[in-house]
Amino acid sequence: MTLSTRSDQDQTRAQTRRSQILDAAAVCFAREGFHGTSIAALSRAAGMSSGHIYHFFENKEAIIEALVERRLEQSLEMVSQFENAEDVFQALIDRVDLGLNEKTDLDNAALELEILAEAARNPRVAASVREADRIKRERLIGVLGRARQALGREPETPDADAVTEILMALFDGLAARVINHPELDRTALAPLIRIALRTFIEGE
Amino acid sequence: MTLSTRSDQDQTRAQTRRSQILDAAAVCFAREGFHGTSIAALSRAAGMSSGHIYHFFENKEAIIEALVERRLEQSLEMVSQFENAEDVFQALIDRVDLGLNEKTDLDNAALELEILAEAARNPRVAASVREADRIKRERLIGVLGRARQALGREPETPDADAVTEILMALFDGLAARVINHPELDRTALAPLIRIALRTFIEGE
Repeated sequence: MTLSTRSDQDQTRAQTRRSQILDAAAVCFAREGFHGTSIAALSRAAGMSSGHIYHFFENKEAIIEALVERRLEQSLEMVSQFENAEDVFQALIDRVDLGLNEKTDLDNAALELEILAEAARNPRVAASVREADRIKRERLIGVLGRARQALGREPETPDADAVTEILMALFDGLAARVINHPELDRTALAPLIRIALRTFIEGE
Repeated sequence: MTLSTRSDQDQTRAQTRRSQILDAAAVCFAREGFHGTSIAALSRAAGMSSGHIYHFFENKEAIIEALVERRLEQSLEMVSQFENAEDVFQALIDRVDLGLNEKTDLDNAALELEILAEAARNPRVAASVREADRIKRERLIGVLGRARQALGREPETPDADAVTEILMALFDGLAARVINHPELDRTALAPLIRIALRTFIEGE
């Protein structure tokens, strides 16, 4: 076994460990809250020692930052799929059901709200949430232009930022809705979300 | 002074004290979180002894429940104004700027997200949030019918629940947006919210 292969294996193992910690943290933060989760509880949930956790993350804030980054990467993967679609508008429409299910998943919504509540009072978490949001938003503004083109419109529109913002508000709001109203009717909401997409992307 | 007047005065004084505690709790919960706020810290912020606080509320959960109730009362006041308006649709349109400013007020958004994050893991808070949401939602479904009438439509529509839900998602989502993006352009968002109201209330 060559040294480089050995080091590749070590890196893969480290990646796996790191992502095991983030998986456990996502569950713990959603169910017990960021402040309600001790490193000891997290180490039990992740099935590894506190020492191991500190090897990867200096503290809980670093873990929440890594979760924000991981959620951003997942969002950007979705954005890439839109960007690579032949008909960008249709790709957005086609993903409504999946997006609705993701946003109204109770554990996912709980984690999202916990991260935002923490960002509202913790400057370090706020900085990381806002930077992730900026990156995602700018990419989505680009997606909006290409979706408008797919509808035969000029890609540029003076209200592109606001249109992106309001569509993000609608999807972010679904997470808040499912906490307020867990029995909300996803099947009835989907066509209305498609109407919102068409109305705002098409513009006047 | 008659006994009844004395008791009225006592009641008013008690109401004032109670609402002083809730004002202080709203600020503390938004800035330090529900779990980050001790009764001792709350008593300092409210300018009264812990004993006084326990006289009004058995524990912190009872305080968060009272905050949820107070926020519901404020929402229902708004709903009453819609119900009493001559043109209910126009009343909704006219209130967009105010609603947008309320939802994107940082302290208000922080408190709302903290309450929802707590509801996601605390069954007692969840029950109170969901009951408040149910009451507000049912009244808003009624407002939707009257707004449709004002637009010359049939008041009843099979998707009334879903339309109400999606408009609530949009407004709830604004609180999440302002944490993610504090510099969001409220002036550019307002006309888009009015378009959403018209599109969804008018229907097809």
